[in-house]
Amino acid sequence: MINKLVSKIKKLNAPIVVGLDPMLNYVPEYIQKKAFDEYGETLEGAAEAIWQFNKGIIDATYDLIPAVKPQIAMYEQFGIEGLKAFKKTVDYAKSKDLVVIGDIKRGDIGSTSAAYAVGHVGNVKVGNNLITPFDEDFVTVNPYLGSDGVTPFIDVCKETKKGIFVLVKTSNPSSGEFQDRLVDDRPLYEFVGEQVAKWGELHMGDDYSYVGAVVGATYPKMGEILRKLMPKTYILVPGYGAQGGKAKDLAPYFNEDGLGAIINSSRGIIAAYKQEQYAQFGEQNYADASRAAVEFMIKDITENI
Amino acid sequence: MINKLVSKIKKLNAPIVVGLDPMLNYVPEYIQKKAFDEYGETLEGAAEAIWQFNKGIIDATYDLIPAVKPQIAMYEQFGIEGLKAFKKTVDYAKSKDLVVIGDIKRGDIGSTSAAYAVGHVGNVKVGNNLITPFDEDFVTVNPYLGSDGVTPFIDVCKETKKGIFVLVKTSNPSSGEFQDRLVDDRPLYEFVGEQVAKWGELHMGDDYSYVGAVVGATYPKMGEILRKLMPKTYILVPGYGAQGGKAKDLAPYFNEDGLGAIINSSRGIIAAYKQEQYAQFGEQNYADASRAAVEFMIKDITENI
Repeated sequence: MINKLVSKIKKLNAPIVVGLDPMLNYVPEYIQKKAFDEYGETLEGAAEAIWQFNKGIIDATYDLIPAVKPQIAMYEQFGIEGLKAFKKTVDYAKSKDLVVIGDIKRGDIGSTSAAYAVGHVGNVKVGNNLITPFDEDFVTVNPYLGSDGVTPFIDVCKETKKGIFVLVKTSNPSSGEFQDRLVDDRPLYEFVGEQVAKWGELHMGDDYSYVGAVVGATYPKMGEILRKLMPKTYILVPGYGAQGGKAKDLAPYFNEDGLGAIINSSRGIIAAYKQEQYAQFGEQNYADASRAAVEFMIKDITENI
Repeated sequence: MINKLVSKIKKLNAPIVVGLDPMLNYVPEYIQKKAFDEYGETLEGAAEAIWQFNKGIIDATYDLIPAVKPQIAMYEQFGIEGLKAFKKTVDYAKSKDLVVIGDIKRGDIGSTSAAYAVGHVGNVKVGNNLITPFDEDFVTVNPYLGSDGVTPFIDVCKETKKGIFVLVKTSNPSSGEFQDRLVDDRPLYEFVGEQVAKWGELHMGDDYSYVGAVVGATYPKMGEILRKLMPKTYILVPGYGAQGGKAKDLAPYFNEDGLGAIINSSRGIIAAYKQEQYAQFGEQNYADASRAAVEFMIKDITENI
């Protein structure tokens, strides 16, 4: 799957991923109204609204982008019904040949991480059947519990040729509180990065590992250091756009082959119609606004790296 | 809810929580068979089996224990159907007046943590309605992203009088890989513990904070240090029993008032019937074996602390 991701990025010349993180207030009124008319102002109604919203964005952008990254929290907040919308979104994106990165940030002790892995990037055994519960291509993983919280994901991914992105340096303002603590005069995220590179050797694709890293766009100097520490690691970079990361800061996240990083934008794409720059599309054409924002983002990034 | 937890622990003289982490191979054959006969060897069949298994254990133990801790990964591995069984388990435990600690180990950047919080310990707004999606009393939270990944949970919990347990030092063998790294000559988990104590001040109950900590039973010396660093923090202690933690090592996790810690056992209780000690109960009476294991655990712990 890392090979597919790299090949799609090269073919489309688009090292980007669209974050499908639908807040209900991003969803145009007319979609919300239709869903609420049908299902009421219920979890089912909310789930239908975000699913229809996502479907519109996927339909309008799938030919331009290699991947989508649904953030499961935005679905989980609507309970079981929301998680059904998550699954529909994953399945629909895959039907459009998109690579799906489930942004789930799971991680636990060994046997528990194995259960998450089986649920999201593997197959679960029920009696004599092997069943695929969710079906992302990659998931994000939290490393706080160390190797035995991470390697069960890698073990499952080796069977299914899927992958993970491990949190190394996150994009949020307080990420430094623990991640930047100096250990032997070096920040903790460097140790985590080195460990990610080692885990990566356990499951290599052609040029890059199935074990990637998450490094926020908001910390480009750290991105530069981590790029060198993890040469075979694909870096998933959140924080471009709405969170403040600029295209000109993204060059250090890429290798000399022009590969090695995939930049995420969520709000900046999916709620583009709410921005002044794309207001002319209007709410009814929110998905066209998203397409225009994708085109702008690809140009912005490829011209600056 | 922390007040309710403390009061139930005192009333029952039972500082324990039963981890409802059902692997399918813990579930007696006759329950699996009945579920598969009805729903096939499907996710629905697996979910029905673990739900019936849980219900039996809750029915057999609810009068002895203050709380249960369902581990969501064990349900999530069966996809949507599994998560329905998670919700049924949470709701049923609450109907028996048990405190429910959702072991979800979530944590993300601010707005995303807020979505998780709303989904698990809060209410989500849909149109003009406020709806409660899942409905745990506490959830576990991963601190790797720092304050802005944790405080959204606290904000939601202040509204709903619910709480969290933040991972400080986990029970697994590789927990030291990052958590024990020395920062200014002190391990990282101490910094996290100090931060948990600070976060705790944001949402205090009568004697203890609504913000608790997770510290594994397998590291009692670290438990002793952390107990002193976080005097008002309830400590959720996994790792007793099957993971190797012994009752005699648990004293340092408690305060002088005999409170301040709640010890979890999962496999040791729910799969008790598989142990030699309880084999006489037989598979049909698995829940009675769990009750006997609860009685033994309460005695073992209260005599040793």
